[in-house]
Amino acid sequence: MPETDLCRIGVAINEELLAQFDKLIDKRGYTNRSEAFRDLIRNELVKERWDSPNSEVFGTVTLVYDHHVRLLTEKLTSLQHKYHSSIISSTHVHLDHDNCLEVIVVRGKATAVQGLANALIAMKGVKHGRFTGTASGRDLP
Amino acid sequence: MPETDLCRIGVAINEELLAQFDKLIDKRGYTNRSEAFRDLIRNELVKERWDSPNSEVFGTVTLVYDHHVRLLTEKLTSLQHKYHSSIISSTHVHLDHDNCLEVIVVRGKATAVQGLANALIAMKGVKHGRFTGTASGRDLP
Amino acid sequence: MPETDLCRIGVAINEELLAQFDKLIDKRGYTNRSEAFRDLIRNELVKERWDSPNSEVFGTVTLVYDHHVRLLTEKLTSLQHKYHSSIISSTHVHLDHDNCLEVIVVRGKATAVQGLANALIAMKGVKHGRFTGTASGRDLP
Amino acid sequence: MPETDLCRIGVAINEELLAQFDKLIDKRGYTNRSEAFRDLIRNELVKERWDSPNSEVFGTVTLVYDHHVRLLTEKLTSLQHKYHSSIISSTHVHLDHDNCLEVIVVRGKATAVQGLANALIAMKGVKHGRFTGTASGRDLP
Repeated sequence: MPETDLCRIGVAINEELLAQFDKLIDKRGYTNRSEAFRDLIRNELVKERWDSPNSEVFGTVTLVYDHHVRLLTEKLTSLQHKYHSSIISSTHVHLDHDNCLEVIVVRGKATAVQGLANALIAMKGVKHGRFTGTASGRDLP
Repeated sequence: MPETDLCRIGVAINEELLAQFDKLIDKRGYTNRSEAFRDLIRNELVKERWDSPNSEVFGTVTLVYDHHVRLLTEKLTSLQHKYHSSIISSTHVHLDHDNCLEVIVVRGKATAVQGLANALIAMKGVKHGRFTGTASGRDLP
Repeated sequence: MPETDLCRIGVAINEELLAQFDKLIDKRGYTNRSEAFRDLIRNELVKERWDSPNSEVFGTVTLVYDHHVRLLTEKLTSLQHKYHSSIISSTHVHLDHDNCLEVIVVRGKATAVQGLANALIAMKGVKHGRFTGTASGRDLP
Repeated sequence: MPETDLCRIGVAINEELLAQFDKLIDKRGYTNRSEAFRDLIRNELVKERWDSPNSEVFGTVTLVYDHHVRLLTEKLTSLQHKYHSSIISSTHVHLDHDNCLEVIVVRGKATAVQGLANALIAMKGVKHGRFTGTASGRDLP
C-alpha cells in the first residue's frame, strides 16, 4: 500500500480529554494515536454502509448448534448451497461431543446477506446465532 | 468554561479516509471536524465508564405503558419513591387516550442504576422500556 | 385496558432452558413469566419498526452539556423551536455548576427524528448525546 | 440429543401481539413459534454470560486488513501464536488484490478473550475489526 496520499490534520482538543483518550487506547492495545482515530472513523463508516440496504458488504455468521438434531446438518448444508454465490467460506469447530460452532463468511447486498443470516439463525437446533457486518477493505481507506 | 488548556494535536490520515469522514460528519450535522473527533472520544469514554460497575453514572429510563393496567401507576410511583435517592426527575407524556411515555433521569453506581431500570422495565403493563447510560459532564472533559 | 382478547399459547421448551430463563427473569425483576415473554416480543417489534424509515416512532434524546459554552443554550433552544412539531417535551437537570442533562421527547418518522437527534448531538459543547428509540404504545399490543 | 425433558408451558398473550409476533418470525425465516421463543431466551442467556467476566465463553473476531501493510501479517501471526491456547482456528479470505478478511474463533474467560480481540483490532493496518461473543453449546440448553 503506497501511502502516498497520507496527510496530517490538526485536531483541537483539551488536555484532560486527550489524557483520558490516551489512557483508554493504551488499555485497548493501541501504540499509535492516529491509528486509534482512524479506527474510530472506519467504525462509523461501516455503520453507515450497513444503513444503506443496497451497498455491497461482507459479514460473518456465527452459529452454535447441536449436530444431533435430526436433519439439521443436512438443512444447514442445503441452505448454504442454495445461497452459494453469497457464501465465501465456512469453518467448522467441534466444541464438544454434541456441539458445533460454525463461522460462515458472507458477501452481497446488505439486505440479502441479512436475510441469509436470519434464515440460518432461525433453524431449529441452532442454539445461538449472531451476524456481524463489516465492509470490503476496498471501501475502507 | 475557560478553555485555557486547549491544545492541538496532529493526526495522520490518508486523504480518501478523511474525505469520507468529512462527508459523514457533514451528513450528521457537524460543522467542525475537531468537535466530531471529540464526540467519538467521549462516546468511548462513556462506554468504558459503564463497564466499571462502581463508577458514578447518569442515565435515562424511557418507559411506554398503558395507564389503565390495574395498579400500574401506583406500582411505578411507589418503586420510584423507594429509590428516590437515585431518581432526579421524571417526565410524563400522554401519548394517546391509553398510552403514556415516561422518562426518568437516574443517577448512581452503574449496577444500582441498572437494577432500578430493570425493575421498572419488568413491570407488568410496561410495554417497552429502554435504559440509556451517560456520564456526568464533570467526568467528560 | 379490557383484555378481552387474551389467549394462552403453548410453548415447547426443555426443562433446563426453562430453568435458566426463570432464574434470569427473576434476577431482572419479573414476577410473571408471560410478561417476560411479552417484553421479549415487544422488543423485537420495536427494533423492526425502527428499520422501516417511514413508520411513526417515538424516542428520547439525552444530552449532557456545559451551559457555559458560548451560545450553546441559544442554539439548542433555537434548533428545538425549528423542529417544534417533532418535539413533545424537554426536561432539564442541573448536574453541577457547569453541566446540564437534558432529555427531549421526540416523535415523527424514524428518519426525521434520527436527523433531529443527530443535529442536537453534533452541537459544539454537547459532551455526550444518545438517542433511544421506542414506539407508540398503540403500536405495541 | 434425546429431548426427554421437553415440557410445554403456557404463555398468556393478547391476540394482536401474537399476530404481530407471528408475522415477524415468519419474515425472519422461522417455521416454528416455539423455536423463535427459545432463541429469544438463549439470546438473553448469552448476554448475561458475557456480563460475568469469569465465565467461559466462545467468540469470533472478524478482521479486515491490507496485507501489504509492512509487518502486519507477521505481527498478526505472532500475536495469535502467543495466545494459541485461546485460539481454536483462523480462516483467511482473499477479498481482493490488497485486502483480506480473517475470522478467528476464540475461547476462554470473557475478559481474556475480549483483551485478545482488542489487541488484534488495534493493530495498525487492521481497517475494521469486530468481536462477536457466543457461548458454548453445552451452556445453552
